[in-house]
Amino acid sequence: MRATILHAPRDIRLDDVDDAQLLQDTDAVVRVVASCICGSDLWPYRGINEVTRPRRIGHEFVGVVEQVGSAVSTIRVDDFVIAPFTFSDNTCALCERGVHTSCVNGGFWGAKDKQGQFVSGGQGEMVRVPQADGTLVATRSQPSQELVAHLLTLSDVFPTGHHAAVSAGVTAGSTVAVVGDGAVGLSAILAAQRLGAGRIVAMSRHEDRQRLARQFGAHEIVAERGKEGAAAVREILDGIGADFVLECVGTGDSMKQAMLAARPGGRIGYVGVPHDVQLNVPAMFGRNIGLAGGMAPVRHYIEDLLPDVLEGTITPGDVFDLTVPLDRVADGYRAMDERTAIKTLLTV
Amino acid sequence: MRATILHAPRDIRLDDVDDAQLLQDTDAVVRVVASCICGSDLWPYRGINEVTRPRRIGHEFVGVVEQVGSAVSTIRVDDFVIAPFTFSDNTCALCERGVHTSCVNGGFWGAKDKQGQFVSGGQGEMVRVPQADGTLVATRSQPSQELVAHLLTLSDVFPTGHHAAVSAGVTAGSTVAVVGDGAVGLSAILAAQRLGAGRIVAMSRHEDRQRLARQFGAHEIVAERGKEGAAAVREILDGIGADFVLECVGTGDSMKQAMLAARPGGRIGYVGVPHDVQLNVPAMFGRNIGLAGGMAPVRHYIEDLLPDVLEGTITPGDVFDLTVPLDRVADGYRAMDERTAIKTLLTV
Repeated sequence: MRATILHAPRDIRLDDVDDAQLLQDTDAVVRVVASCICGSDLWPYRGINEVTRPRRIGHEFVGVVEQVGSAVSTIRVDDFVIAPFTFSDNTCALCERGVHTSCVNGGFWGAKDKQGQFVSGGQGEMVRVPQADGTLVATRSQPSQELVAHLLTLSDVFPTGHHAAVSAGVTAGSTVAVVGDGAVGLSAILAAQRLGAGRIVAMSRHEDRQRLARQFGAHEIVAERGKEGAAAVREILDGIGADFVLECVGTGDSMKQAMLAARPGGRIGYVGVPHDVQLNVPAMFGRNIGLAGGMAPVRHYIEDLLPDVLEGTITPGDVFDLTVPLDRVADGYRAMDERTAIKTLLTV
Repeated sequence: MRATILHAPRDIRLDDVDDAQLLQDTDAVVRVVASCICGSDLWPYRGINEVTRPRRIGHEFVGVVEQVGSAVSTIRVDDFVIAPFTFSDNTCALCERGVHTSCVNGGFWGAKDKQGQFVSGGQGEMVRVPQADGTLVATRSQPSQELVAHLLTLSDVFPTGHHAAVSAGVTAGSTVAVVGDGAVGLSAILAAQRLGAGRIVAMSRHEDRQRLARQFGAHEIVAERGKEGAAAVREILDGIGADFVLECVGTGDSMKQAMLAARPGGRIGYVGVPHDVQLNVPAMFGRNIGLAGGMAPVRHYIEDLLPDVLEGTITPGDVFDLTVPLDRVADGYRAMDERTAIKTLLTV
């Protein structure tokens, strides 16, 4: 089989590797139908996260089950399945509390599982899926070709935006500001709209992303950044700021912008993977600012979001503006690195 | 009239001052029946917050209305009233959203109001109350002597503990850890118990406070601090930590302890006035830790909490373990400074 390997910063290739196979009786092997590239994949691609040796990459995929281990009972061969960006048993005390990303038997694609055995990356032809019953969500039937991209977003990007909105506590009729116009920020807009937010302000400087932001439910666009951007948000939202701010970038600057865009008593949902972000609690105290979020426990949300995708009520896959076959994966990375694409879908 | 003045660190006296009087038609003048000393009063008392000139002090009091301005319509002369630790109009956009501490017409006792006029401190015989209709909560009748201490806690300490519990999101049956065994921490235990928490762990090293913690609803006591204390909390609570941690101290160490005591996906309610507390967001991200709280919008909570106090269902005034007349206010401060008292009540 072939799988994507990051050899060094900006040196990414589709290589021949050993076939994925069942290693534990709770495993499944999935033939990937579509995968995609995440903003977080760009950190090692750009060398900001160090790359010390060639490594598998990719953590978002949908596919069809080829094999299941003897202890797998709910997932069946030929099921079309969605794989969350972490695997999990869906039964431990932390999964029961909805924090599947902290599952005691969980882990990450392209790394080792708790038994020390290698788990495939998602940007490949086949994947060994640990804890298959807990990890995978099967659709009832084979989806149409048009639905694949939308279903693929349930692996990560759409539930991550949803996690920002849910963690902040977005309620019907509330005001929401979204920091970040990448695929996660755009997904957060759609999630806030789906939860009934009354007024959504998107912070975006790029015309194509502004257009998608509006399509996903943004009522207003603020192109300014930093203090000026936050002041513009406050002016639009009753002069006081947003009830909820969704922070979908993860830098110190974006977090400051989020803090300033929130009204007193406001809540920030943070899902941008943070790099060197510190919060000054004394500055939050007087204004009663709260913050919740983190690494989205995607598995916890998929069953809730799936019906809306299957029924076409929402079309989260519209964040994909570039589709390339897997053997052109390097082009897909380059486009995202150079910001000519918002998010790249890889067909297998 | 007489009022408490902090002249310099540890130099606090009851001095003769000008009588409190109506200055605006939305004012009331209240004759104080009881006031008390807050842990936050110790910051300037100890000189940690700089004292550059003599200043009035005190922000928690109950009393009887002596005079009302011509625009005051709901508060009447002779009403017994509870004063929150900030004044507020209870009608602005931020009060409407329950953030009375950020009221556009609000402010602090012992400082200037938005019109630039001086507002009395609470540790005195009489107080000018701005925005009387919005600020004060009247009881339906004159309370018995035994109820006064419990009603006085509604000025600050009990709703502040309640704010920690509500901000964290304490639900029936949940697990709660409380960091801090001062009057606020003890109040937070009582608040968590009132909200139906299933298991409450109090972190306390002092026997008298442990006793009150148990009386207020703590099921377990952890005497260790820091990493060891957090590990003990995790061991007691299913090996994973608390659903909700109430941070009632406000130091960097106490916040770290709170972070480590929370389970993945846990929420911290922060109400300890923070001094130089920084949060490392990358460390929170992977564990999905959230945090909410701040300066308690006490006015928002009083009407909700008052019936339980009037009916004797809860006795939050048990945090007072020293009562002195106002002319011995210096003794009251000394006792709290030397930790021989948890909280001092001042009778007038």
